[in-house]
Amino acid sequence: MFESAETGHAIDKQTYRREVEVLRGRLLAAQTALREQAKFPVVVLISGVDGAGKSETIATLYEWMDPRFLSTLAFSEPSDEEQERPFMWRYWRALPPRGRVGVFAGSWYSIPIARRIARTMSRAALDSRLDEINRFEAMLVNEGALVLKFWFHLTKDGQKQRLRELERDPRTAWRVNKVAWKRTRTYGALLDVAGHVLRVSNTASAPWIIVDGTDDRYRDLCVGKVLVESLERRLQGGPTPVTVAPPITPLIDERNVLSALDLTRALPEKRYELELARWQGRLSELSRDKRFRDHALVLAFEGMDAAGKGGAIRRITAAIDPRSYQVVPIASPTDEERAQPYLWRFWRHIPRRGRTTIFDRSWYGRVLVERIEGYCTEADWLRAYAEINDFEHELVRSRAVVLKFWLQIDQEEQLRRFTEREQIEHKRFKITAEDWRNRDKWDAYQRAAVDMIDRTSTGKAPWIPVEANDKGFARVKILKAVVKHLERALDG
Amino acid sequence: MFESAETGHAIDKQTYRREVEVLRGRLLAAQTALREQAKFPVVVLISGVDGAGKSETIATLYEWMDPRFLSTLAFSEPSDEEQERPFMWRYWRALPPRGRVGVFAGSWYSIPIARRIARTMSRAALDSRLDEINRFEAMLVNEGALVLKFWFHLTKDGQKQRLRELERDPRTAWRVNKVAWKRTRTYGALLDVAGHVLRVSNTASAPWIIVDGTDDRYRDLCVGKVLVESLERRLQGGPTPVTVAPPITPLIDERNVLSALDLTRALPEKRYELELARWQGRLSELSRDKRFRDHALVLAFEGMDAAGKGGAIRRITAAIDPRSYQVVPIASPTDEERAQPYLWRFWRHIPRRGRTTIFDRSWYGRVLVERIEGYCTEADWLRAYAEINDFEHELVRSRAVVLKFWLQIDQEEQLRRFTEREQIEHKRFKITAEDWRNRDKWDAYQRAAVDMIDRTSTGKAPWIPVEANDKGFARVKILKAVVKHLERALDG
Repeated sequence: MFESAETGHAIDKQTYRREVEVLRGRLLAAQTALREQAKFPVVVLISGVDGAGKSETIATLYEWMDPRFLSTLAFSEPSDEEQERPFMWRYWRALPPRGRVGVFAGSWYSIPIARRIARTMSRAALDSRLDEINRFEAMLVNEGALVLKFWFHLTKDGQKQRLRELERDPRTAWRVNKVAWKRTRTYGALLDVAGHVLRVSNTASAPWIIVDGTDDRYRDLCVGKVLVESLERRLQGGPTPVTVAPPITPLIDERNVLSALDLTRALPEKRYELELARWQGRLSELSRDKRFRDHALVLAFEGMDAAGKGGAIRRITAAIDPRSYQVVPIASPTDEERAQPYLWRFWRHIPRRGRTTIFDRSWYGRVLVERIEGYCTEADWLRAYAEINDFEHELVRSRAVVLKFWLQIDQEEQLRRFTEREQIEHKRFKITAEDWRNRDKWDAYQRAAVDMIDRTSTGKAPWIPVEANDKGFARVKILKAVVKHLERALDG
Repeated sequence: MFESAETGHAIDKQTYRREVEVLRGRLLAAQTALREQAKFPVVVLISGVDGAGKSETIATLYEWMDPRFLSTLAFSEPSDEEQERPFMWRYWRALPPRGRVGVFAGSWYSIPIARRIARTMSRAALDSRLDEINRFEAMLVNEGALVLKFWFHLTKDGQKQRLRELERDPRTAWRVNKVAWKRTRTYGALLDVAGHVLRVSNTASAPWIIVDGTDDRYRDLCVGKVLVESLERRLQGGPTPVTVAPPITPLIDERNVLSALDLTRALPEKRYELELARWQGRLSELSRDKRFRDHALVLAFEGMDAAGKGGAIRRITAAIDPRSYQVVPIASPTDEERAQPYLWRFWRHIPRRGRTTIFDRSWYGRVLVERIEGYCTEADWLRAYAEINDFEHELVRSRAVVLKFWLQIDQEEQLRRFTEREQIEHKRFKITAEDWRNRDKWDAYQRAAVDMIDRTSTGKAPWIPVEANDKGFARVKILKAVVKHLERALDG
């Protein structure tokens, strides 16, 4: 979920000044209209990693907007009054009335996340609380509220660096205490818990918006823009409940998980052969390991045409006993498959323990080709992100290792491969008129792929974006990833 | 939830024959149209208490419909193939394709319910599984499926009697084994777990339908009618997802939780005074009991005008220290309350531990007066049942005792009290033109009250329907109920 938020977003001073000038005017106008119409309340949740700038952004919002009609609710440990009432009581009391904006610094998510990190709350109890929260938020939205949930993200190094910077500056040093440094030690646990919480509570009525917290200007601009755009849309009578419109990471600059890949990465021929043999050998051992009988392996391959999916898959299957794997190429559904929910044809191929299924193209067709070609409605592919996450979550829960590979090439490389294929007799059958047509939709596919990775890459079922201009580099990266994740599963 | 299913439904032979003749024709026609259109699949779940006639009804459906396009899926303990895959895999494999009806005898609910009764599954794990089930069913409905979930209900005595009858008949005796008799011992646990499961999974997209399983003819007719009506509606292009249309208990006859009350019940004056003193004394003790400091008491009173809510409330407050209770009369919301979600004005009065709040009319206004007068949209009051259940569930979870009283009088008694009030000078202010208007909507209010009780009476926050033609009888019944539930909470 945090992929595109980790690609080094930054806004320079000049751009920032120029954008803020426009933004402030729009924000004030929207706030005035909100107050005058008094038709709906705005609930803004600011959550995220410590040191990612939550209070700085709230301070900026006060600067930009009319503070008289903005309220900030901060919650620490519950008071005795609060402890003697239901968990949600304190938040009910703090809800902004219609026409006003309420900013929740720390919200109904804070305590469950903290308790889960400290292991004083079971996973099942957390899920039960999240279900309650989802119902509460659905109720808010049904009652007319505009609910915006921001998650401020930092990488582990990013968090440490932010804390050091705050310490160096005498004006902010007081904000960095021992607790904050202590929390950096639980970063891994936080990411794990937050990843789960965000996945489960990323509902159609109240989706999460992930913001890179590294750069102050980028972060503030990001929140301000999403806020004003959502406000303007609602004031003009836009849809309620708001549909989950990708991107999960707002489009403030050009940086995203795919554009950040370095496609020049390559392996020299000799090195490739050595590494290939090494990792295939390791995979072969793991697939015959006794402990693998308690797990299953599910791999999905996606990528633009000619990105090298088939070749990469063959390098994996070469290392596994043919009786224990199945490669499932996904083309148009059969009649029987068309008569069922779209996930049905993937469910039927789910491997039992000790076995592997490799999907050459996958259930992600719904949010890629079906989205772009209009084979399903917008509502259908929008809800698919959550359905797919649920599907993979179930696989993982039944002890399958689930990995998804996106093979990224650039347009020049694709053209080179297309031309090459046309020239080589035995590969000619592979290139069709449709392939050339898809090429025209390059940007649309890239956009859809970024949305897909940001919305469905989870700690338990991650997307692995692969630099695939060099086939050797891609194949080895994929093999290594399979080995690494399999080892981790067998050891854990 | 089971209130109206416990009112002794029965259909005589003649009526049954007449109705079945029409029903079979409609069912066959609908099934043919379903097959020809092949636009959506029909998923029918048959769940419920042992001995309530699940297999009998399925057999009847085979008699009534074309068995070639009907399939029944029965699930016992998972096979080894199934155990090595995700929990839902076996059900995915069994889904009917578009154009066909799949009857699930035992479904994704069976195993969680059985495990929870046996205490091999924690409450939180159950909730987590239910969340998964809700998402799965929402997906099915979004993919076009018509999902009908039937729960066959029996009272504890009803269950025993059914088993005895089956045993007596040599044709059915084989079906009653030791296990079945053993299960009667866990009846209380089943009802507790099933009540929770049904409440949480009673979603807008796939609502539960509760069927009294006592009378074979009533039960079969009930399922057949709901099935054919839902099919016909969908075939004519009716809404998807289907909205939760009350009643939860189908309207097959005139019997329901309110019509079943015996309004002639009364207490002679002397008896009344003795009992009143006795139960007030007991309540007074309980309210000063140390253990009450760990709980709170929330009472809601609803009923037709002049049903005696105020008088009953005063008999309760007379027994409690005035510093520890609050009576909240609910009339039109204030401006401040109107600017918030409708439940907000009740949340603000939630008592802390050791205290009592009594609501004279309550949050149920949304599904009574607001529904009938059109003060909110249909979608609003339809979703309110689940929101209210969630709200009360949270109260109970924070250790509050929640009781809801419906005071039932008949129209003659109401008229008598209205006239009396007009004659007695000091009561005149209480009777308004609006009261006379509401009287015209008697039937609509009764219907709404039945839907309300059936949908929101849960094991933890029950509705107590009170025969209130005799004020003394009503007051004592209410006091006794408060004492009984409070005692149970303090002891448990």
